[in-house]
Amino acid sequence: MASKAEIRKQDLREKLVAAAEIRIRTDGAAALRARDLATDAGCAVGAIYNAFEDLNAIVMSVNGRTFQALGQAVRQSLVGAETAAPTDRLILMSNAYLGFAADNTRLWRALFDVRAQETEIPEWYREALEDLFANIATPVAELFPEKAPQDLMLMVRALFSSVHGIVLLGLENRISGVPTDQIEHMISEVLSRLT
Amino acid sequence: MASKAEIRKQDLREKLVAAAEIRIRTDGAAALRARDLATDAGCAVGAIYNAFEDLNAIVMSVNGRTFQALGQAVRQSLVGAETAAPTDRLILMSNAYLGFAADNTRLWRALFDVRAQETEIPEWYREALEDLFANIATPVAELFPEKAPQDLMLMVRALFSSVHGIVLLGLENRISGVPTDQIEHMISEVLSRLT
Repeated sequence: MASKAEIRKQDLREKLVAAAEIRIRTDGAAALRARDLATDAGCAVGAIYNAFEDLNAIVMSVNGRTFQALGQAVRQSLVGAETAAPTDRLILMSNAYLGFAADNTRLWRALFDVRAQETEIPEWYREALEDLFANIATPVAELFPEKAPQDLMLMVRALFSSVHGIVLLGLENRISGVPTDQIEHMISEVLSRLT
Repeated sequence: MASKAEIRKQDLREKLVAAAEIRIRTDGAAALRARDLATDAGCAVGAIYNAFEDLNAIVMSVNGRTFQALGQAVRQSLVGAETAAPTDRLILMSNAYLGFAADNTRLWRALFDVRAQETEIPEWYREALEDLFANIATPVAELFPEKAPQDLMLMVRALFSSVHGIVLLGLENRISGVPTDQIEHMISEVLSRLT
C-alpha cells in the first residue's frame, strides 16, 4: 500500500507535469524554469527535485502524454476508412499528423528535441515511438508484401521521416517558403509516389 | 571610406562570429552566452550589443557561413558526376547533405532552429536557402519536364524536406531507432521511388 508520503509525491508529480504541459505548449520546452513550475504547482523549488530527477524528466513525462494524444489523433483519422487503399490510409494518417503538429507545435517539437546528448532515452519513450510507427506498419506491409521485416521497418521509418520533414519545414514556412496550404498537397504527392 | 571606429567594429563583428561558430559547433546555439563570447573576443559584454543587435543576430551570421559551407559541400558532390542521371545526382547531393549534417550536427541544426517566433527572418537568409534549393531544382526539372514552375518549386521542397527528415531522425537514432549506416540506403530508396 502506498504511504501518505508516496501519495503526496505522486500528486505533486501529476501537478508538475500538468503545469509543464501548459508552459511547454505556450513557450516551448527550452523556456521551462523550475521556479515557474514551483509557483504553478504551489510547492517549493526544492520539492520539484524530490519528485523528479531534473527538469528534463518532467519534459519527458509531458512528451509521454503528447505521444498518447498524437497516437490517438493518428488512429482516429482511420475511423470509417478502415477499408480504404493503404496509400490513402497513409495520407489520412499523415494529414492527422500535420494537424496535430500544427495545433500543438511546441509540444510536438519537444518530442524530437531531446537535446542533451548525455540524457538516456527511457525504454518507454522508444516504445511510444514504436507504437506510432506501428500504425504506419500495417498499410506499408500491405503495399510491400515481398519485403523482409527488416526492410519493412526501414521503409516505415523512411516514410515517417519524409512526412515529418515536410511537416517540420512546412510549419517553419517563414524559413522554407512552403505555403502552409500546400503541405497536404506535398504529403499526398510524396506518399503516392513512394508507395 | 570607413572610419577607424567602423573598421574596429567590423573587426569585432568578425571575431564574435568566429567565436560563436566554435561555441555553436561544440555546444549548440541554445547554449550561447554573451559573457563567454566577450571572453573569447576579448571585449566587454556591452561591446557585443554595439556590434550586433542581439545574440540571435550573431547566430544568424554564423548560419550564413554554415549555408555557404553546406552549399559548397553539396555542389562539390557533383564534381565529375555532371552527366550522371538526375536521380543519381539527387542521391549524391543528399549523401553530401547527410555527411555535412553528421560532421557539423549542431551548426546544421542551428540553421533550422530559428526559434523565436517573433524574430524576423532576413531576406538574405531566405535567399541562402533558395540557393541550396537551386542545386536540387536542376535535376528535378529534368525529371519532371511537364511540371509548371510552381509545381516544380513544391516538388523541390518536398524532396528536400523528405531527405531532411530522414537525415534529422536518422542522426537522432537514439530516439528513432534508425541504424545510422542505413540512412544512405533509406535516402536512395526514397529518392529512387520519388523520381
